[in-house]
Amino acid sequence: MTPADLDFANRLADAAGSVIRPLFRGDWEAETKEDSSAVTEADRGAEAVMRKMIEEERPDDGIIGEEYGRTNEGAGRQWVLDPIDGTQSFVAGRAIFGTLIALMQDGWPVLGIIDQPIQRERWAGRVGEVTTLNGKAVKTRPCRAVEGMSMATTSPHCFSAQEADAWLNVVTNAYPKMPFPIYGGDCYNYALLASGQIDLVMESGLKLHDYAALVPVVEGAGGIMSDWQGNPLDAESDGSVIALGDPARLEDVMAAMGGGAQHNH
Amino acid sequence: MTPADLDFANRLADAAGSVIRPLFRGDWEAETKEDSSAVTEADRGAEAVMRKMIEEERPDDGIIGEEYGRTNEGAGRQWVLDPIDGTQSFVAGRAIFGTLIALMQDGWPVLGIIDQPIQRERWAGRVGEVTTLNGKAVKTRPCRAVEGMSMATTSPHCFSAQEADAWLNVVTNAYPKMPFPIYGGDCYNYALLASGQIDLVMESGLKLHDYAALVPVVEGAGGIMSDWQGNPLDAESDGSVIALGDPARLEDVMAAMGGGAQHNH
Repeated sequence: MTPADLDFANRLADAAGSVIRPLFRGDWEAETKEDSSAVTEADRGAEAVMRKMIEEERPDDGIIGEEYGRTNEGAGRQWVLDPIDGTQSFVAGRAIFGTLIALMQDGWPVLGIIDQPIQRERWAGRVGEVTTLNGKAVKTRPCRAVEGMSMATTSPHCFSAQEADAWLNVVTNAYPKMPFPIYGGDCYNYALLASGQIDLVMESGLKLHDYAALVPVVEGAGGIMSDWQGNPLDAESDGSVIALGDPARLEDVMAAMGGGAQHNH
Repeated sequence: MTPADLDFANRLADAAGSVIRPLFRGDWEAETKEDSSAVTEADRGAEAVMRKMIEEERPDDGIIGEEYGRTNEGAGRQWVLDPIDGTQSFVAGRAIFGTLIALMQDGWPVLGIIDQPIQRERWAGRVGEVTTLNGKAVKTRPCRAVEGMSMATTSPHCFSAQEADAWLNVVTNAYPKMPFPIYGGDCYNYALLASGQIDLVMESGLKLHDYAALVPVVEGAGGIMSDWQGNPLDAESDGSVIALGDPARLEDVMAAMGGGAQHNH
């Protein structure tokens, strides 16, 4: 990774945002992919414009995109693109989706951007550097115990029955009286965790393009990300994800999960 | 209701927003109420400033507020206030909460405002008038069938087991292949339904201050609101709420709910 990579990633995010903004709450037709998730003109257009820039300006780098797949699979440097993470929110007109851009080096995410183009908020993280929101340093907050933690996940439907048990075990530990975890939000929850607004995000079934950009953002802000077994996230991870603002709570959260942590995909 | 009531309600929302904005993502301490929901300085401050205006400028009207209770209980005109609906989102830094202001006349909501002070979006509805977003008319969208409907609810934890069954029955009808309802969002989902972005919102356990303002906004945009038995919402409703962009689908949704529609509180 060179210092120019961040500038380039920022230009990618600018280009994606220019495609997405005019289509937000606009008149467009949701299509249906085989897996039934909504795909929009914005989704495809934003990835296409980013791919074109990478192919022109970084022809030796690889690309892993949600919409258009892989290019230069053997390259050590791979740009991982999710033009709209949180398609349901985008479609519903909620400005809590994000464009995700990651640079992976030899399988490890070393640069990540979470861009919210409507609210014009951009979180940027790099290995060894402090994460920023619109250029200003952000940091996660300390958290003394699982009890009282604020926790978020996008949708309970993303969990298997066993994973749902693990999630509910943590919910019960965090909110002994009345369960109030935060639902919805996709990548935006991780960005807010980096800004010290949320303590824990747990998800499963994520693809590489869903989580690669989150790692440098969260860890550059002082947090930690792992799979549900506590292993660091790389290109081969199983899609289960824990993000914690306070790394000291990782063992506590895994203990609170109980047997559900031993999930199988 | 007089034409001046809308101007007054707009000034109430302006005042609440002025209290809330500086405290969003700020340094404040969440307190704990008996029911464990987070109460913030913003919540209390915004209701206090609205109550003061009502007491000074509409001394004969009643007030029903989430934070500070009731004033002038016998009055035929009642202002119903929820300074921050979506406290969890506010606390997490997600700008999808809202200030709710309703005017009820003889138990029926006749004016409603849903105000998002960070994104500066204000939906306003009055009986017999077209709902507006920042002064521009909005309308709900037609919906041909339950299958393919976009549907939202804030949190699965708000449902009883029987209600959750009803919700999941509708989810299964709406998304036969893969369930992708929208979670999180509170009042903001109803506002987006009024703008034609979402087809159905289902919730239960709502208080009067949670739903009174939603009714004129949704119905003035062409939608319909009812309880889970299909009855119109008034001050005595049981807290179960259906909002539909296309009133022609009410019977279909209730049929899709199955036995869970016959819930008891």
